[in-house]
Amino acid sequence: MSESAYTTGRLARWLGCECCGDDTTPIARVATLRDAGPNDIAFCASDGYREALAHTQAGAVLLRASDRGYCPGVALVGANPYLAFAHVADWLHPEPASPPGIHNTAVVADDAIVDPSASVGPHAVIEAGAWVGALARIDAGAFIGRQAQVGDGGRLHPRAVLAARCELGAHSILHAGAVVGADGFGLARDGDRWHKVPQLGRVVIGEDAEIGANATVDRGALEDTVIEDGVKLDDQVHIAHNVRIGAHTVMAGAMVVAGSTSIGRGCQIGGNGAINGHITIADGVVLNGMTGVTKSIKEPGHYASPIPAHEVSEWRRNTARFLRLDNLYRRLQRLERAVRGTGQPSID
Amino acid sequence: MSESAYTTGRLARWLGCECCGDDTTPIARVATLRDAGPNDIAFCASDGYREALAHTQAGAVLLRASDRGYCPGVALVGANPYLAFAHVADWLHPEPASPPGIHNTAVVADDAIVDPSASVGPHAVIEAGAWVGALARIDAGAFIGRQAQVGDGGRLHPRAVLAARCELGAHSILHAGAVVGADGFGLARDGDRWHKVPQLGRVVIGEDAEIGANATVDRGALEDTVIEDGVKLDDQVHIAHNVRIGAHTVMAGAMVVAGSTSIGRGCQIGGNGAINGHITIADGVVLNGMTGVTKSIKEPGHYASPIPAHEVSEWRRNTARFLRLDNLYRRLQRLERAVRGTGQPSID
Amino acid sequence: MSESAYTTGRLARWLGCECCGDDTTPIARVATLRDAGPNDIAFCASDGYREALAHTQAGAVLLRASDRGYCPGVALVGANPYLAFAHVADWLHPEPASPPGIHNTAVVADDAIVDPSASVGPHAVIEAGAWVGALARIDAGAFIGRQAQVGDGGRLHPRAVLAARCELGAHSILHAGAVVGADGFGLARDGDRWHKVPQLGRVVIGEDAEIGANATVDRGALEDTVIEDGVKLDDQVHIAHNVRIGAHTVMAGAMVVAGSTSIGRGCQIGGNGAINGHITIADGVVLNGMTGVTKSIKEPGHYASPIPAHEVSEWRRNTARFLRLDNLYRRLQRLERAVRGTGQPSID
Repeated sequence: MSESAYTTGRLARWLGCECCGDDTTPIARVATLRDAGPNDIAFCASDGYREALAHTQAGAVLLRASDRGYCPGVALVGANPYLAFAHVADWLHPEPASPPGIHNTAVVADDAIVDPSASVGPHAVIEAGAWVGALARIDAGAFIGRQAQVGDGGRLHPRAVLAARCELGAHSILHAGAVVGADGFGLARDGDRWHKVPQLGRVVIGEDAEIGANATVDRGALEDTVIEDGVKLDDQVHIAHNVRIGAHTVMAGAMVVAGSTSIGRGCQIGGNGAINGHITIADGVVLNGMTGVTKSIKEPGHYASPIPAHEVSEWRRNTARFLRLDNLYRRLQRLERAVRGTGQPSID
Repeated sequence: MSESAYTTGRLARWLGCECCGDDTTPIARVATLRDAGPNDIAFCASDGYREALAHTQAGAVLLRASDRGYCPGVALVGANPYLAFAHVADWLHPEPASPPGIHNTAVVADDAIVDPSASVGPHAVIEAGAWVGALARIDAGAFIGRQAQVGDGGRLHPRAVLAARCELGAHSILHAGAVVGADGFGLARDGDRWHKVPQLGRVVIGEDAEIGANATVDRGALEDTVIEDGVKLDDQVHIAHNVRIGAHTVMAGAMVVAGSTSIGRGCQIGGNGAINGHITIADGVVLNGMTGVTKSIKEPGHYASPIPAHEVSEWRRNTARFLRLDNLYRRLQRLERAVRGTGQPSID
Repeated sequence: MSESAYTTGRLARWLGCECCGDDTTPIARVATLRDAGPNDIAFCASDGYREALAHTQAGAVLLRASDRGYCPGVALVGANPYLAFAHVADWLHPEPASPPGIHNTAVVADDAIVDPSASVGPHAVIEAGAWVGALARIDAGAFIGRQAQVGDGGRLHPRAVLAARCELGAHSILHAGAVVGADGFGLARDGDRWHKVPQLGRVVIGEDAEIGANATVDRGALEDTVIEDGVKLDDQVHIAHNVRIGAHTVMAGAMVVAGSTSIGRGCQIGGNGAINGHITIADGVVLNGMTGVTKSIKEPGHYASPIPAHEVSEWRRNTARFLRLDNLYRRLQRLERAVRGTGQPSID
């Protein structure tokens, strides 16, 4: 399909948007409001970009009805411009296809089953009994352990590891360097030593999920670690053994979840925090970045814990007080009693 | 050995447990109390599982004498049921053996020494002068740099890296994607630039240690980074140059230790915290997850620092007060003086 | 050049130092003050090492004029002994050269351009349209995506990934397992699901930069993620999409920067903290380890936020008070009013 096949009118029709303006404008690329030219389409999804919208040179802009008046050119009006933009970007900028078949440097076990439509890149390794579905894409140097399964359209980016017996659902993605199915951190005390406890469970990842670059999801001890459909984990996230993450929960970079914790559906979890082991997080919980969760959260809601950065000399004074905060409280309490004793009204 | 070779009586004898009940029950698998069937063995190591114990269908349960009365079936009674369980799991579920020898796609330098009993997987690379001991297992795509050493029974999981001159002790494990021996973060100021300082030391890892998936342990600047026997580091842990970690210390996921710090033996360190550089942590220290250690800890004990997650509007108010905590303290102090001035007794 | 080619006199001349003592002492190695012998050179860059300096057996010591009097042997006196030491270490301990050319197990696309002086190791993969400059070194199992570029003298350590279209500047380094150019974490809400937003930008890394082992730098959504010249990122750092990091900024292990944030030049950022998305950090900002930055920092300066570790029973009491800190403040305020009501002077 030539580039001119995409016009504002056709895009509007496919997206279910209203096209306000010339519906024959050819669209070739997506771009930002600031960089877009006359054959580019941009989006505006929040009030903060109205200034940029007013000055854009874009051939068309995806926007909400409430921003229509600020758009100098063709507007494609819909309820969710950012989602519409994602679809247009998929159509205009498809990833280069990977040829089906197995690269001659890949090592694939005789009894592994690889769909003929799948693409297996150079130096990939697929062990005995593994199964790779239709149109799956296994990039250079990726590793699929014995009896592991990759669903239709699944993808392992370069150097990703899906260890023995683990499952990656249809259309799910392991980004480069991700490791799914390493042993959970199970140790039994043996005097002053620790004895490794065999980790016999699997990791089971649903459909349409993503595991970020260099993230780690450990296999369960006896039962499985479960990542449900549509879960999106950013780079460097670490999920310990026997964790369950509910469908469509998203987790930003370097978040850590300790073992046997169960996280609900539709949660939004900021980066570089930690969730304690053996607890439960309700559906629909939102956590700020760097939040530490020590106890179960039973109600959906928005939670946080980090102390914000401040100037270091103040920080030194404030943390020094923090280390005596209980003492400070007790002094306040004594003062309250003393003042009450002088006839002041009681205070809570 | 057929599955029926394992009976409750034999397991009890090998483990040094007392077998209470039928000692001829055949045992084929390990399982949880909840999932176990009549040929499975489960364990109960804490009071919290007594309910599950009372309802288990397990053929046998490893437990403490104090839980004996709650077990509906055969009980194998011993002092450390979880350790006993780890042993039984090792016996019943050994990892599939890897054939000795070097895969024909592996690249092994002519002067590298690889014991004939070792297994070297597809696309592994072993550089000049490296040494790999008896029964070691080097998985697909693992890398062993020049003059590095892997002790007898050592293991590199897929894509693990043991860089030049580093040593991995006998029976120690690098999980998938772990990088041992990258350069330490040594930089010398050069005006407004930073000049890389060559990192000439090694990483030396003792016996029976484990380095988690995608973890990093940097080589020393001049002296070595040292991980002593039996240390267990979880996934994504980062150990900077010249750190020393004492024997049998364990560290949970994504913990970070800055350069030249020395950590004692037998410590238990939670995940996603950080330990400052150039300090000392005593033997037997326990740290909660997300704990930040800024100064040396000289006494064994249990330490912590994270603020727990709470509802975000309260968090906003509380952190706003925290940023003025020293001021709050001074106001309290002034009030104390004022109240004392009215005749109240002095307070500490 | 034989080892004896390096003498104290020559080193002093090359470094622009003053040689105090015998300028014919042959120097063969660098070492610490404590370990150095008569043919070794050590350095002393801070007062804390004067005791070690006084007892060193080193053949020569690089030091500041103010430490000259404590040195028992030959002193090479200059303004920046640590930088001088880095240069000497480069000269005395050059990394073993890698032979130019492409290893026969590497897979290089026909239309990729690899300078004949570059070294490409076993099982490396270089995709179509990629470009690798003079004297670059691509280690075992490294991956260079289509149309990606590695500048002259650039280096990918084993298993490093430079994804499609990304650029690594001259003399810059990706350490083992680093992933540059994975998709940014861009998601558009689609009811209760998340739709992946194509990540079309690149990562552009300047000259003389370093990206640590298992670190991740994500490609931009539409525009590029930019790492300027001389930036040094330690292991496990995570940089999200569309971030810009100014020249000569350094960042310690496991630091996390969220999307679209702009960090100035010459910043020094501690490990395992997090910087929020869509904010700006001024030039010359210093952050302690484990610091969480929630808002833009407009002034150069030194900032921090972590609560230091303390004994766990105190920590429990202090954090319990923290969770009621706003309440504590209000009680103080009421007391102030009450005490003022008794005739005390007003307090701020």
